[in-house]
Amino acid sequence: MLSEGMADLTFERVAKAAGVSKTTLYKWWQSLGALALDGYFHAVHTTLSFADTGDVREDLRDQLHHHRRVMAGPGGHALLELIGAAQTDPDLARAYRALYSSGRRELAYQRLTRAKEQGQIRENVDVRVLVDQLWGAVYHRSLIPDEPVTPEFIDALVDNLFDGIRPPERKP
Amino acid sequence: MLSEGMADLTFERVAKAAGVSKTTLYKWWQSLGALALDGYFHAVHTTLSFADTGDVREDLRDQLHHHRRVMAGPGGHALLELIGAAQTDPDLARAYRALYSSGRRELAYQRLTRAKEQGQIRENVDVRVLVDQLWGAVYHRSLIPDEPVTPEFIDALVDNLFDGIRPPERKP
Repeated sequence: MLSEGMADLTFERVAKAAGVSKTTLYKWWQSLGALALDGYFHAVHTTLSFADTGDVREDLRDQLHHHRRVMAGPGGHALLELIGAAQTDPDLARAYRALYSSGRRELAYQRLTRAKEQGQIRENVDVRVLVDQLWGAVYHRSLIPDEPVTPEFIDALVDNLFDGIRPPERKP
Repeated sequence: MLSEGMADLTFERVAKAAGVSKTTLYKWWQSLGALALDGYFHAVHTTLSFADTGDVREDLRDQLHHHRRVMAGPGGHALLELIGAAQTDPDLARAYRALYSSGRRELAYQRLTRAKEQGQIRENVDVRVLVDQLWGAVYHRSLIPDEPVTPEFIDALVDNLFDGIRPPERKP
């Protein structure tokens, strides 16, 4: 999935590569989507992990640049296809959330909550919303590509959110 | 589409309701998706228009609450299905951008640019990125519903972006 996307992914190929029977695979994963998502979650775990250097802003920026690169590859394209198919396939939608997105959200919540405890994010901010304003914004441009996902876009996401878009107040 | 979604939308029904032949419809819209998106763009034009009261923050908040309500209805669900199908249908993806999303983006850019000219948004902010951090965040939660799109979520999107999520600097 990471190197070729979803097109040629089959239970047959995975069974052969893993040296197990298709029956064994079916026992654990009821659909190709579930199998792909579970594998993908673990495959990107290290690449998309969150550093904790003590500077949440730079740690997020760093992770988001990695995320951008993963999303630009075949694995990212496969993910967009699965999100697409999930819109009319409730089983796949459930699998997507259970095996991929809710786990990714949880990891982001942990890093953001730690930053809040360290006083790097305002007390009254709901960290769950930040996931949609950072990674969600990347998914939005990926799913509806009116504008490209560039490194400058990633930096702007972080800067807008941390600094705020209001002009600085003038000293009286 | 606004009252029933995509499921029972056909060229036949639209031709009957409009009192024109199917041939006439096909001449203007090559696919049901294109027909639906063109109609939808015009149908929501008034509901999703941007006020200009001079306070961009409140104008955006207001528009985003309208957007939330539209997205929660059958029209919004139809839109999510079309985004989904567009992931594996390049013609539909092109139609989606040409007939819907690029036009909606343009209207947002105009309102945000005016706010920038009035000094309500920082000079160095790329207004194109704000679309992904506001409406894009709503699409993200709608397409991958790990978390609900509540009125509180809408308010948080605006507040986070305008105020910034950094804690206020302590006076020395």
